[in-house]
Amino acid sequence: MVRMTASLRKKLRATTCWIYDFDGVMTDNRVLVLADGGEAVFCHRGDGWAIKTFRELGHRQFILSTEENPIVMRRAEKLRLPCLHGLADKKAGLLQCAQKENIDLRYAAYVGNDENDREAMRMVNLKIAPADASADIRRLADLTCRSKGGYGVLRELLEIYRFANEK
Amino acid sequence: MVRMTASLRKKLRATTCWIYDFDGVMTDNRVLVLADGGEAVFCHRGDGWAIKTFRELGHRQFILSTEENPIVMRRAEKLRLPCLHGLADKKAGLLQCAQKENIDLRYAAYVGNDENDREAMRMVNLKIAPADASADIRRLADLTCRSKGGYGVLRELLEIYRFANEK
Amino acid sequence: MVRMTASLRKKLRATTCWIYDFDGVMTDNRVLVLADGGEAVFCHRGDGWAIKTFRELGHRQFILSTEENPIVMRRAEKLRLPCLHGLADKKAGLLQCAQKENIDLRYAAYVGNDENDREAMRMVNLKIAPADASADIRRLADLTCRSKGGYGVLRELLEIYRFANEK
Amino acid sequence: MVRMTASLRKKLRATTCWIYDFDGVMTDNRVLVLADGGEAVFCHRGDGWAIKTFRELGHRQFILSTEENPIVMRRAEKLRLPCLHGLADKKAGLLQCAQKENIDLRYAAYVGNDENDREAMRMVNLKIAPADASADIRRLADLTCRSKGGYGVLRELLEIYRFANEK
Repeated sequence: MVRMTASLRKKLRATTCWIYDFDGVMTDNRVLVLADGGEAVFCHRGDGWAIKTFRELGHRQFILSTEENPIVMRRAEKLRLPCLHGLADKKAGLLQCAQKENIDLRYAAYVGNDENDREAMRMVNLKIAPADASADIRRLADLTCRSKGGYGVLRELLEIYRFANEK
Repeated sequence: MVRMTASLRKKLRATTCWIYDFDGVMTDNRVLVLADGGEAVFCHRGDGWAIKTFRELGHRQFILSTEENPIVMRRAEKLRLPCLHGLADKKAGLLQCAQKENIDLRYAAYVGNDENDREAMRMVNLKIAPADASADIRRLADLTCRSKGGYGVLRELLEIYRFANEK
Repeated sequence: MVRMTASLRKKLRATTCWIYDFDGVMTDNRVLVLADGGEAVFCHRGDGWAIKTFRELGHRQFILSTEENPIVMRRAEKLRLPCLHGLADKKAGLLQCAQKENIDLRYAAYVGNDENDREAMRMVNLKIAPADASADIRRLADLTCRSKGGYGVLRELLEIYRFANEK
Repeated sequence: MVRMTASLRKKLRATTCWIYDFDGVMTDNRVLVLADGGEAVFCHRGDGWAIKTFRELGHRQFILSTEENPIVMRRAEKLRLPCLHGLADKKAGLLQCAQKENIDLRYAAYVGNDENDREAMRMVNLKIAPADASADIRRLADLTCRSKGGYGVLRELLEIYRFANEK
């Protein structure tokens, strides 16, 4: 388990909204390229379980993706998550989403893995990086997971969230 | 090889029925998401070999899966295993299956990897977890394999079963 | 590089025919199961390079597979290798192939990874196992590679073969 | 981060053109073989990000591939990179490309992973290998990355390039 500081615990306890980058967070940042140009990615069942559990706790969850492709849409549908994709500017997308959906970013966590997440990440209370995020993003993060992207980052976050809320 | 205690040896020797969770046990818990929403998973040939060998020993084997999808059905057909899938409550599914198929759970082993396996797992004599199961499930297990899910957990169990029955 | 004994060097120098198991040697022993029951496996480009190079040296090469499926056929066609597949008994298949193709097994190497390769493996001069072969097969092998199955075992063998023939 | 010598820094600073081998550099050198003989490979989103960033810096970039298949074409199209594929002789292909595109190879870097890249690699100023390139290629390289092929080699190169140009 990651080291739980008082500051991190406080931020985790305050969180009621989770914003997930897709590639590199819910996937291992790799994409299967097919001969017809189609793509496919590996997602993790444990993350599906975490999303289901956070939903049962009444938390809100969103996927924010730069890539404009049908895979992230299909995955979001299966997980029943709202998804903003094809975002050239994730910060603008996040702010627009927050306003439209009435989200207070002081209670939001953002899980991102690379440079194009940086400015969006700065907007939220709790900044989270997978173990294999870029050095820059890990430096910015309040919490770097032990899981690599696509290998159960959200499942690990659920454990950490529960641990922070124990007692 | 895992450490063989007298208690574990006894449980292994008693086992004549194996119940397998699918995702995270017979797969690495990842799912390939295709652009049309279709899915695919990686299974392991060594597990196929183990299932064939347990069958030749006269053991019974079942797949129990929460996911309701065609992949687990296709895999079960290829392996010629009965499969209960789309189970919201695995414990209820297991008990129903045990009654219908006349299985005495005192001779059964259950291989599971995450929270939704816990209550079903508690029903059987021998509780088994892949190396990368959730912390909770590993604590509950009589035996945690060295193999991660999808990398030959059942193949390893065959070796362990044989070792327990030697001499 | 693996440790080169005088005995291993002699066996490598004598080899002019290579017999490859498919699953677990030219693949990582995993199979992608699709929703329609179709399958797919990962092969390694480095192995393709090794096969091409052995062919240029005038060596003969065969694929021997228990699985009866179209993938091993497609891969064999692309690599332009003769392929015997759907073999319940690999030893019988190997002996039949040796007779028909006029192969002297005293100059043959066999690369196998699991129990169903054992008896066939015993027939040849040089017995080779990937790093992640079953314990039994590794014990039987003259040479256990550093590469795992599907991660360039044949490419590594090419290096080892060259090293044994240096000077 | 890799060790930055004065010589390496100088070569990195001089680079304005990047030439990428495909298999084993932009992929993990593995290919998914489908039952119909179709193929697919895993590419890395971080490499896409690096390519986009180098383009914004005004650098030129090319893919050079021995394999003649539609996947490398599809990937090149998506990344908007010129691609020479189906090259039996990569050195000849490189020299022809350099002449046609008016590229001075004294300002070019080549990222390759195996024997068939060697002679082409010798033509350029900066020779780069992924962590899992063949021993021969790593010996030839000015720079061996920490990333394995297909796991963000180009993304790492972007970091190294920036570091060499700092201050």
